[in-house]
Amino acid sequence: MYSAGDVRIENVPDPQIIEPTDAIIRVTRACVCGSDLWPYQKMERSDAGRVMGHEAIGIVEDVGADVRTIKRGDFVIMPFAFSDGTCPFCHDGLQTSCIHGGFFGTTEIAGAQAEAVRIPLADGTLFPVGAHADDALMPSLLTLSDVMGTGHHAAIIAKVTAGKSVAVVGDGAVGLCGVIAAKRLGADQIIILGRHADRIALAKDFGATDVVSERGDAAVNTAISIARPGGAVGRVGVPQEQTIPGSEPAFYNNVTVGGGPAPVRAYIEDLLPDVLEGNIDPGRVFDRAVGLDGVPDGYRAMNDREAIKVMVTP
Amino acid sequence: MYSAGDVRIENVPDPQIIEPTDAIIRVTRACVCGSDLWPYQKMERSDAGRVMGHEAIGIVEDVGADVRTIKRGDFVIMPFAFSDGTCPFCHDGLQTSCIHGGFFGTTEIAGAQAEAVRIPLADGTLFPVGAHADDALMPSLLTLSDVMGTGHHAAIIAKVTAGKSVAVVGDGAVGLCGVIAAKRLGADQIIILGRHADRIALAKDFGATDVVSERGDAAVNTAISIARPGGAVGRVGVPQEQTIPGSEPAFYNNVTVGGGPAPVRAYIEDLLPDVLEGNIDPGRVFDRAVGLDGVPDGYRAMNDREAIKVMVTP
Repeated sequence: MYSAGDVRIENVPDPQIIEPTDAIIRVTRACVCGSDLWPYQKMERSDAGRVMGHEAIGIVEDVGADVRTIKRGDFVIMPFAFSDGTCPFCHDGLQTSCIHGGFFGTTEIAGAQAEAVRIPLADGTLFPVGAHADDALMPSLLTLSDVMGTGHHAAIIAKVTAGKSVAVVGDGAVGLCGVIAAKRLGADQIIILGRHADRIALAKDFGATDVVSERGDAAVNTAISIARPGGAVGRVGVPQEQTIPGSEPAFYNNVTVGGGPAPVRAYIEDLLPDVLEGNIDPGRVFDRAVGLDGVPDGYRAMNDREAIKVMVTP
Repeated sequence: MYSAGDVRIENVPDPQIIEPTDAIIRVTRACVCGSDLWPYQKMERSDAGRVMGHEAIGIVEDVGADVRTIKRGDFVIMPFAFSDGTCPFCHDGLQTSCIHGGFFGTTEIAGAQAEAVRIPLADGTLFPVGAHADDALMPSLLTLSDVMGTGHHAAIIAKVTAGKSVAVVGDGAVGLCGVIAAKRLGADQIIILGRHADRIALAKDFGATDVVSERGDAAVNTAISIARPGGAVGRVGVPQEQTIPGSEPAFYNNVTVGGGPAPVRAYIEDLLPDVLEGNIDPGRVFDRAVGLDGVPDGYRAMNDREAIKVMVTP
């Protein structure tokens, strides 16, 4: 991506092992994230451009000399953040705050909408799936690199437990995964706030019990305003404002507002068995698949709300 | 209070039982709250005025026909909010969101900077202390009606547990009670942010291990900015803004922001034994005592930061 709306497919040098803790993976599936649409709408022109994409599954092609647990040939999930797996925050299960970590698809670390990716801190970052899973499971496995883990994070921060009533504000891919997460955690009532017929239909398949087609201008404000006293809001969309709305209703109702970049690395352990056993099928959020050449149009389609989420098979 | 800065002592009719669930208490101790300083600084002129005060201990003088558990002669703590004790929020321990509840010292319900108060929903609201406690304990018992419970609420929402590091932003009476609460919950390191020598000395007595005399303009912004990734902020000061600052640092560090009016009614059960046994002594936040006639000057003294907190003995 060179600037807003300017996504190109280019040949670049193959990624190489730089640090002895690196690995190289061949990407078997990647995708376009809702958060990729922010630079797609706003990015200022950059001569160097930015290799986009932070969600992938793939096969390990090479490992550095100090990589211990990841081996060539492993089938792995690449979380959107890399992490050393050993720092205090990783120990707490908050790998997105790893003191040596960072994010894929940034100006520093090339992204996964590509044939191959260099993975820093491979042992701490990559999650080996173990079994070679069936092809039909690939889309759902891919969601464990971000969107399903992010929906799960929203539900965890919103303190969803058995018997609770949950509202999911937004019917994008993360919201849909939030419905799956709420259902999986035992919520009784799952209200989806959204107005795209296809997405609402999918939300119902995933377990939504109620649909509200109206919502306020700001998702977080809506969430705070409708939360039960003592309730909690899990905020997982990248914030676009300096302040959080709803200071007074949040205060007077003792509503907690939390969330942030989801530590999906920690959540894979919980969610993977349910994917492998077919209990959840978050891969259904992909309603379009493209090759690398189709990525620019994939951005356009997601930005125009023509596609929910676009999968990339390099 | 008739307007900002205009506090008068007046004779008014004695409070009467209105609803059969009411009680009347004779106030033995009341006090001035930091939150009373907002109207003291900002209140617009009102012909009716407002009977201020929402913190008290006292003796039950009369009860309505439907009052079951509270009896004449009981020595009781009056939480700053009244509550029915039976609604779903009361059952959850969030009495400040009681569906039939409300707050003392408002335009609707007369306050406790007075000789006597009408207590709505007496069974759900009042907490009978049981034993007639020693006079020396009265200030600490009084704090259970608000300020100690509020400091405890901040600590609970900030997820203080054994071994944690805690920062308390502000050295007012609530901050000082926050130090007591953090210590009581087992925090290892307790950092007080404040710059009043007398208050800092008291904070150290209460268990503060570190002092930082600089802080930002906004307490919540400071708290969010210094919180550890994955940490939590307990916000208990009445918000004066429509939005919560620090949207981005809160998000990127997965810092949770919660809090609100403290359900002190729920906390009395936890805190009272420690007061009665002398394990905590929050009454030390009162550094001035006045009779009713001294209340106007008590407001002035607190507003000028001449007194930490003023106790009233009607």
